[in-house]
Amino acid sequence: MTNEQGSYLTLEPLFNPNSVAILGASENKRKLGYMQVKALLDGGFKGEIYPINPRSQVIEGLECFQTLSDVPKQIDLAIFCVGADKVKVCLEECAENKVKAAIIFASGFSEIGEEGLKEQQLIREIAKESGIRLIGPNCVGLVNTTNGLIGTFSAGLTNVPLNVQRDVGFVTQSGAFGVLTYIAAAQNGLSFNYFVSVGNEVETEFSDVVEYMIHDPKTSVISGYLEGEKSPGKLRQLAKQALIRNKPIIVMKAGRSSAGIRAAASHTGSLAGSDKIYNSFFKQTGIIRADDYDDIISFAKLFLSKKLPTGRNTVIITSSGGRGINEADRCEAHGLKINSLNRLAKTEIQRHIPTYASAINPIDLTAAAAVSNPELYLEPLKVLAKDPDTDIIIFTEFPMNWTSDNPLFKEFIEICRGTDKFILVSTFPLEGMSIPKTAVELEKNGIPVIPGNLNPIKALAKLVDYSEKYQKNKHNENLSIPKLQEKKVLKSLLQAGTTLSEFQSSDILDLYGIPTTKRAIATTENEATHHAANIGYPVALKIDSPDIPHKTEADAIRLHLNDDQEVRNAFKEIHLNVSDYKQNARINGVSVQEMLPEGVEVIVGVTNNPVFGPVIMFGLGGVFVEVFQDISFRLAPLTKNDAIEMIEEIKGYSLLKGPRGKPPVNIDAIVDVLLKVSALVTDYGDCIEELDINPLIVNEKGIVAADAMIVTRDSIDQTTAVGR
Amino acid sequence: MTNEQGSYLTLEPLFNPNSVAILGASENKRKLGYMQVKALLDGGFKGEIYPINPRSQVIEGLECFQTLSDVPKQIDLAIFCVGADKVKVCLEECAENKVKAAIIFASGFSEIGEEGLKEQQLIREIAKESGIRLIGPNCVGLVNTTNGLIGTFSAGLTNVPLNVQRDVGFVTQSGAFGVLTYIAAAQNGLSFNYFVSVGNEVETEFSDVVEYMIHDPKTSVISGYLEGEKSPGKLRQLAKQALIRNKPIIVMKAGRSSAGIRAAASHTGSLAGSDKIYNSFFKQTGIIRADDYDDIISFAKLFLSKKLPTGRNTVIITSSGGRGINEADRCEAHGLKINSLNRLAKTEIQRHIPTYASAINPIDLTAAAAVSNPELYLEPLKVLAKDPDTDIIIFTEFPMNWTSDNPLFKEFIEICRGTDKFILVSTFPLEGMSIPKTAVELEKNGIPVIPGNLNPIKALAKLVDYSEKYQKNKHNENLSIPKLQEKKVLKSLLQAGTTLSEFQSSDILDLYGIPTTKRAIATTENEATHHAANIGYPVALKIDSPDIPHKTEADAIRLHLNDDQEVRNAFKEIHLNVSDYKQNARINGVSVQEMLPEGVEVIVGVTNNPVFGPVIMFGLGGVFVEVFQDISFRLAPLTKNDAIEMIEEIKGYSLLKGPRGKPPVNIDAIVDVLLKVSALVTDYGDCIEELDINPLIVNEKGIVAADAMIVTRDSIDQTTAVGR
Repeated sequence: MTNEQGSYLTLEPLFNPNSVAILGASENKRKLGYMQVKALLDGGFKGEIYPINPRSQVIEGLECFQTLSDVPKQIDLAIFCVGADKVKVCLEECAENKVKAAIIFASGFSEIGEEGLKEQQLIREIAKESGIRLIGPNCVGLVNTTNGLIGTFSAGLTNVPLNVQRDVGFVTQSGAFGVLTYIAAAQNGLSFNYFVSVGNEVETEFSDVVEYMIHDPKTSVISGYLEGEKSPGKLRQLAKQALIRNKPIIVMKAGRSSAGIRAAASHTGSLAGSDKIYNSFFKQTGIIRADDYDDIISFAKLFLSKKLPTGRNTVIITSSGGRGINEADRCEAHGLKINSLNRLAKTEIQRHIPTYASAINPIDLTAAAAVSNPELYLEPLKVLAKDPDTDIIIFTEFPMNWTSDNPLFKEFIEICRGTDKFILVSTFPLEGMSIPKTAVELEKNGIPVIPGNLNPIKALAKLVDYSEKYQKNKHNENLSIPKLQEKKVLKSLLQAGTTLSEFQSSDILDLYGIPTTKRAIATTENEATHHAANIGYPVALKIDSPDIPHKTEADAIRLHLNDDQEVRNAFKEIHLNVSDYKQNARINGVSVQEMLPEGVEVIVGVTNNPVFGPVIMFGLGGVFVEVFQDISFRLAPLTKNDAIEMIEEIKGYSLLKGPRGKPPVNIDAIVDVLLKVSALVTDYGDCIEELDINPLIVNEKGIVAADAMIVTRDSIDQTTAVGR
Repeated sequence: MTNEQGSYLTLEPLFNPNSVAILGASENKRKLGYMQVKALLDGGFKGEIYPINPRSQVIEGLECFQTLSDVPKQIDLAIFCVGADKVKVCLEECAENKVKAAIIFASGFSEIGEEGLKEQQLIREIAKESGIRLIGPNCVGLVNTTNGLIGTFSAGLTNVPLNVQRDVGFVTQSGAFGVLTYIAAAQNGLSFNYFVSVGNEVETEFSDVVEYMIHDPKTSVISGYLEGEKSPGKLRQLAKQALIRNKPIIVMKAGRSSAGIRAAASHTGSLAGSDKIYNSFFKQTGIIRADDYDDIISFAKLFLSKKLPTGRNTVIITSSGGRGINEADRCEAHGLKINSLNRLAKTEIQRHIPTYASAINPIDLTAAAAVSNPELYLEPLKVLAKDPDTDIIIFTEFPMNWTSDNPLFKEFIEICRGTDKFILVSTFPLEGMSIPKTAVELEKNGIPVIPGNLNPIKALAKLVDYSEKYQKNKHNENLSIPKLQEKKVLKSLLQAGTTLSEFQSSDILDLYGIPTTKRAIATTENEATHHAANIGYPVALKIDSPDIPHKTEADAIRLHLNDDQEVRNAFKEIHLNVSDYKQNARINGVSVQEMLPEGVEVIVGVTNNPVFGPVIMFGLGGVFVEVFQDISFRLAPLTKNDAIEMIEEIKGYSLLKGPRGKPPVNIDAIVDVLLKVSALVTDYGDCIEELDINPLIVNEKGIVAADAMIVTRDSIDQTTAVGR
């Protein structure tokens, strides 16, 4: 679906055109075609602007052309201010005139149903054939605040004063939500460099814009609003590149809820995928998930300070005891540590602050500091700037009347600049929408100032997570997909759309090197005792049938059989129970197996997600999965690091590490199984619908799959199903 | 510590004085004593104002008096604009002149340490003796916006324009945080009727103010900021009264984190108590917990609409698809249900909205509705106003240019007023701090308008919780503390500060009717076999020693003993192991017990909290407590409803209800044990430090305590420890 890697270069005419034609330009001030021309002029766009309208001579002082062909020069970008019915004809005209890119606002395509979808596919074909890079349709356009390209009609975007333009790009699947974010950001002192509303993504997709921003030197942070990613594989690759470049991607993913997913599907026509899997996808790729636009704004402002937190140890300096406590609560709620000050720091600070102030963390300088003695902030800062136990310093209720006229304020800023501690000012939004001069000065010097209602602490915690991921990524050898072995030929995967029996499924696990129990199929009592003797007593007997996936329910398992007689009895009982349970079940026989070792039960499963492909699940067995849903997911193929993180992520990890003096289980053995399962479902992603190894028994020595089930896919692509 | 119930009447002179004296009044405009006089004048206070200053004649046109005694009339309230060093003398003067109430701003008391605390205690004594009701010291004062009593110097409180005064009271333990909340509320169209900063609570406490507001007809919602409640027992009683009166109490409790608790302790000098226990306290009492002042503002605005949601079924009507999805996500994240529309509603709505709009929930009317066709909102509203499957209707991105000039807007409002559906408008705060006329009109008609950044959905979910609690409270017979039996005489509770053995502890449980195992103490092998025969084989043997609480660790338990020989062997082994484990342990003997039935392991525990007294814990046994901390707490004494809620609250409840076709356990038996434990620790709250019944075995038939341990308190108040 998506464009090739490297194709981001062809997006250049969208972002930085030398010339723009406005199709459907108008003299009527209430029309889109007028507003668009005006927006480009007001934005101070430096390139050529060609209004196109057969019935006008001049629009806002610009010469108007009857058709595109009348324009004497090369047109890089065409902006379509025309209704849905005229889009196709205009796009063909663009193709004839070698226009390189287009923005199409019109709605009335896939979002209105069958007919619109057909029209949209025609447009897609024209774009693909002619190589025109295309944003929309059904979008609010594209804004590049660095060159004045205001490619939008939206009053929300054109009316916002640009405070301080910052190196943050924003791409959105919802026009309206995008505009709200754009405004909220500007109100909080953050004007995006790029705003891209991708609309129906008929040609240029969300991930294409992300790719452009990754390669764009003017972008430090990539942010976005996402309802459903169409090319998760590409986005995963891009995220890897972004992390290497230290360019965070922060995305608000909407459609968390079942209703949200339903609506998202209808809203953008894209398949949303379950929210849990998106969460895992974000964890796996290092993409930061924003809960709201607040998180995007706060995170971007924090990152633009150009420091990364070196750890989680946080000291709060406040002039309001209550606010200090509140921020401490928020810090700990989001995984930051409000550590006790070490004795040296405490003594030093206590020496310089008044006796009524408090030198425990949060450090409460009392209202005097904010009202009349801002210099009180200096001494604790000096001490903490050098304190080895401090990573982050948060100021709350900072005096916003302190400015650079005051030499002590300058000193304050110098200390902040000179330390590697991450410093943040969390303010109360008292001043309405105008940004206080003090805040501007602080931000200019790399000290982010964020109103408390934007929850800067949550964003800060996300930045610490990102910082850890970035550092880990630099020094981690387990980040590539391991090549375990050649693709295996799986003869037993012959029948499509069926459930394979435990025995058949285990054979497949064997081929991929996943430890299974010693076992043999018996169709008679004599065969059963023969196999039991070979395997060694005690043994277990289980029915083997593709039609009986729930063997316990059928009462078709017998454990701890110690001799021939017990095996014979069990064999009979199982057959009796099975014929009661399901009369015409296809029976392969009875599987005779070695008894399992003692250990902890874990589960490894796979489901083939329509958006993400094979998704691997890990968890503890039994009630832990059922009652607590204590499970983790990652997309195949797994890196070793993914496998390790999956295991460490579950709450029950402490049970694997050995609770109450018990020895830890062999975690490496679990990692090994996860990687082998990953290899299997990556090789056969188009054949395997579901895979369930439940349970695996793991102890301090090793691991063994005690039961397994594979469900194959209904339709199998014959070309990739090698060996069948 | 706290005042008697009913004493709220004596708070009247604080809230509604006929006359106010300002001690330390001043002509100097930079002084507190001037600002306070000015604030009363500017506030339009109707009563008498008497500035007191020996060196002034007139302040702001008011006659000034040299001393309190010079004032010719009765003084209801004295406001202290003097330093800490003068407070005592001034208060004595107040007492002599029969002043009824006082506000003391000065800091320099318990918060600065030993010396300040001593001074504070003197002040307390004077107040108690003279009956003066006193707010402070170390506070920002009291504001009554209904009568212009601006009893504060804080510019934050005096400079805020009062938009629409609403029936919401606010009481705070942090002055600064209180002021921030006051301002934020006013900016969002909510001016509190009362603002009370209680400071060091030397006399009037947080709960006293709550009590006043419960009885005050001008207050519909009681809100507050709390760091540590000094009188939880009183607050629990008050909460019960408030719930009966349908007067919600919403409290932001700070000090969630360990650091927050540390700081809170230092900040207000009050003992904070663990946050988990506060959470349980709020659940138990029906007090709503706010996470931030946003929640207080949003919740109050929602409640003032005078409707209570009838359920959780929510329909969203939006003009932005993205925003609709986002609100749907928030609804489901907070436990509201975004249900699919029923066929009738869907058909009706589809008939009246344009084809490009979407009649699934969220209903997306597209930008056209907000920009040019607000009447589109009418038809879906008409349908949903009568839809039996809808409880709540949320509008997002509502057109804020629609006003009552438009007859359709009037119709919109009439439909909203005529339905019992809860209706909310969630807007984007586009307009800065001024409130749009449309919003004012909507709110006047009982339709709350709340900016999305105040998270109205979260507050709405809290209102639904409250509504359920209120309804349940009306029809619930299990809300009183059951009187199970007379207080029992507990002879074995003789030694203070010790750990009682299992056998001793079980004896106490027996006295309170809690089922324990059949058991007998044996000091010889012969005794052991004798007891075993009496109890009936198989039996278990356990060491019984107050010095060995962890019997498994000492390897001093033997189970499934089937005959005399096994009992003799076990007896020997246990004694051997114990002497290895702890040489000089005091041994009562070996407890011979019946073997336990099969069942689920649960735990009931009690810890005696320094703030809350005995707190009862319930959870599933084993790893569920350790790994998942799947436990619930309630304060003793329990109502039957408390006990039921404790059980239903844990995630593992599904295991008790019978998973996978297993029969449910006897929940009533667990309730019974919880109530009996509650009776025990209520009777002996001053003797019992800890109690642990771990595990209790519960199955479909009944329950039995399999192990128990009681730790007694070091210091026992002999007067209440009856029967010892």
